[in-house]
Amino acid sequence: MAIAPLKVCIVGSGNWGTVIAKIIGNNVKTLQKFAPTVKMWVFEEVVNGRKLTDIINNDHENVKYLPGHKLPENVVAISSLSEAVQDAGVLVFVTPHQYIHKVCDEISGRVPKEALGITLIKGIDEGPEGLKLISDIIREKTGIDISVLMGANHACEVAAGKFCETTIGSKVRENGLLFKELLQTPSFRITVVEDSDTVELCGALKNIVAMGAGFCDGLRYGDNTKAAIIRLGLMEMISFARIFCKNQVSTATFLESCGVADLITTCFGGRNRRVAEAFVRTNKTLEELEEEMLNGQKLQGPPTSVEVYRILKQKGLVDKFPLFTVIYQICYEGKPVQEMLPCLQNHPEHM
Amino acid sequence: MAIAPLKVCIVGSGNWGTVIAKIIGNNVKTLQKFAPTVKMWVFEEVVNGRKLTDIINNDHENVKYLPGHKLPENVVAISSLSEAVQDAGVLVFVTPHQYIHKVCDEISGRVPKEALGITLIKGIDEGPEGLKLISDIIREKTGIDISVLMGANHACEVAAGKFCETTIGSKVRENGLLFKELLQTPSFRITVVEDSDTVELCGALKNIVAMGAGFCDGLRYGDNTKAAIIRLGLMEMISFARIFCKNQVSTATFLESCGVADLITTCFGGRNRRVAEAFVRTNKTLEELEEEMLNGQKLQGPPTSVEVYRILKQKGLVDKFPLFTVIYQICYEGKPVQEMLPCLQNHPEHM
Repeated sequence: MAIAPLKVCIVGSGNWGTVIAKIIGNNVKTLQKFAPTVKMWVFEEVVNGRKLTDIINNDHENVKYLPGHKLPENVVAISSLSEAVQDAGVLVFVTPHQYIHKVCDEISGRVPKEALGITLIKGIDEGPEGLKLISDIIREKTGIDISVLMGANHACEVAAGKFCETTIGSKVRENGLLFKELLQTPSFRITVVEDSDTVELCGALKNIVAMGAGFCDGLRYGDNTKAAIIRLGLMEMISFARIFCKNQVSTATFLESCGVADLITTCFGGRNRRVAEAFVRTNKTLEELEEEMLNGQKLQGPPTSVEVYRILKQKGLVDKFPLFTVIYQICYEGKPVQEMLPCLQNHPEHM
Repeated sequence: MAIAPLKVCIVGSGNWGTVIAKIIGNNVKTLQKFAPTVKMWVFEEVVNGRKLTDIINNDHENVKYLPGHKLPENVVAISSLSEAVQDAGVLVFVTPHQYIHKVCDEISGRVPKEALGITLIKGIDEGPEGLKLISDIIREKTGIDISVLMGANHACEVAAGKFCETTIGSKVRENGLLFKELLQTPSFRITVVEDSDTVELCGALKNIVAMGAGFCDGLRYGDNTKAAIIRLGLMEMISFARIFCKNQVSTATFLESCGVADLITTCFGGRNRRVAEAFVRTNKTLEELEEEMLNGQKLQGPPTSVEVYRILKQKGLVDKFPLFTVIYQICYEGKPVQEMLPCLQNHPEHM
């Protein structure tokens, strides 16, 4: 008996979601394992007097979030979330992270139990004991198996077909390999690892380190110091993962694209770094700079540092994480940014 | 019976050697374990009509290689190499790497057998079977134990007292800890690891990766691709160390300053990156650019790639190192730089 091909549904249609829809739409054309039509849930908007779903389905372009790129015609935009997810065998979550609770509540009970999910959502949520992973939220609310995909992947460069790597974390390796088949292209190269919580944590914690890198740039401390901050940040990321994750944390995961590569791009190019640098060089608050510089986007480093600090405090481990801690204190407690230096000088890594 | 304090001799007095002399000269003042006077071997030159040793010993400044920085008065410049090393308990090798054979031949038989050495010399030498470590040359020619020190350490930033980290590799951990005592300051922070060959290899191999990063910049491939090249280069560094080193190679060593941190500074700021970028954007050869752009300094990436390629070819492992190999071929065999892309796309890391 032939196995029915898996229907793919992309939950989200922003910039990154639309780039991924383009990749998946093209890939499924030659993969028997997947159904030839890909559904994409689109939060309905009116653009130039037309519904965004109509524009996507007729012109095959997401003119609002990925203008200038044609989508494959087998990608079908659907404005009803429950209709989009029903019968799905594979769900790709790529909404802004603040909507994930609402989305999960809406699809809860409608998603087939045997469906496989993957989240591409960067960021973390607030739990009763500090940070909570997006994958855990989806898993708890829908009951399905969830993998994650994270890496050094500026969406616009991926859309332009520029070469990059990414990492899939899957607790069940064969599910990770299935997603690799669905998502890999000659220019979007994937490795699969099993400690998916670590992969997901990397995507959140790197933003704290990027704030430190930006403070360093603002203070003009130079290349050596910046490299040291990035490295000490990486060491704190590893130590934090070891505290936070229930499963075994492998150092090797931090050498994947989700680890060191994404950290590098974020500490040299990202928005957190840029705002942190401006924070040192101006008299403005982070809130003011966020509003002025980010065009509606939000800083992810400071709120992540709050959640991390709550956990460290609760476990009595603040002293072991001087960089994460001082970044939190600079962002929220008015600590002078120059205080980062003694924290580096007395870091437990050098004891 | 009191143990006689160890006499320290610094073999070399270029830019990096003079910075280290400043650190050591200050540190020994408060460390009973070391003799209060530090000898520094200076290759005699005449500067503004005066001998460089006289200038250093009277004005306490190396006006040629570290102008503007006062040396502690307990650092004594000596032009005779054999006089400088006699009775030394600790030898710090920091000459340009092309002089190490000559230096070792001259001191061979004069250095006390129980002396401890450390090399700060970045680079590799040519052996009968491909690359040879500088520490192995010193060890073979002098018979003493040799540690290594490598990290993200631009000399001028260290001289200015800017915060940085570095890594000491010592096959005998207590020797590494002794050097840590001698060299650590509040702004020059040290970790000690035992796989010293890996530490030393990192300092050489990173320059090959930096050529790849520079080609990527020249081709304007973007941030994602550059991060992927740095990461894949790091993976090839690890795989190469596993082939080359006789001792156990720990992944964790690549997370030290000598690994990921030095790689980052070299791939964003170093001379190899800069010349490689210019190579793509001009019609000039690497030799022409080296002469035009480096003011007498040499590229280290291309010659290192030759030695690495010889070993890979001999062992039949060229296919497992596509990035190292294509960089060699671009530098020496006229391969078009665009050929780097298919090597990334078919990298064994993603199989």
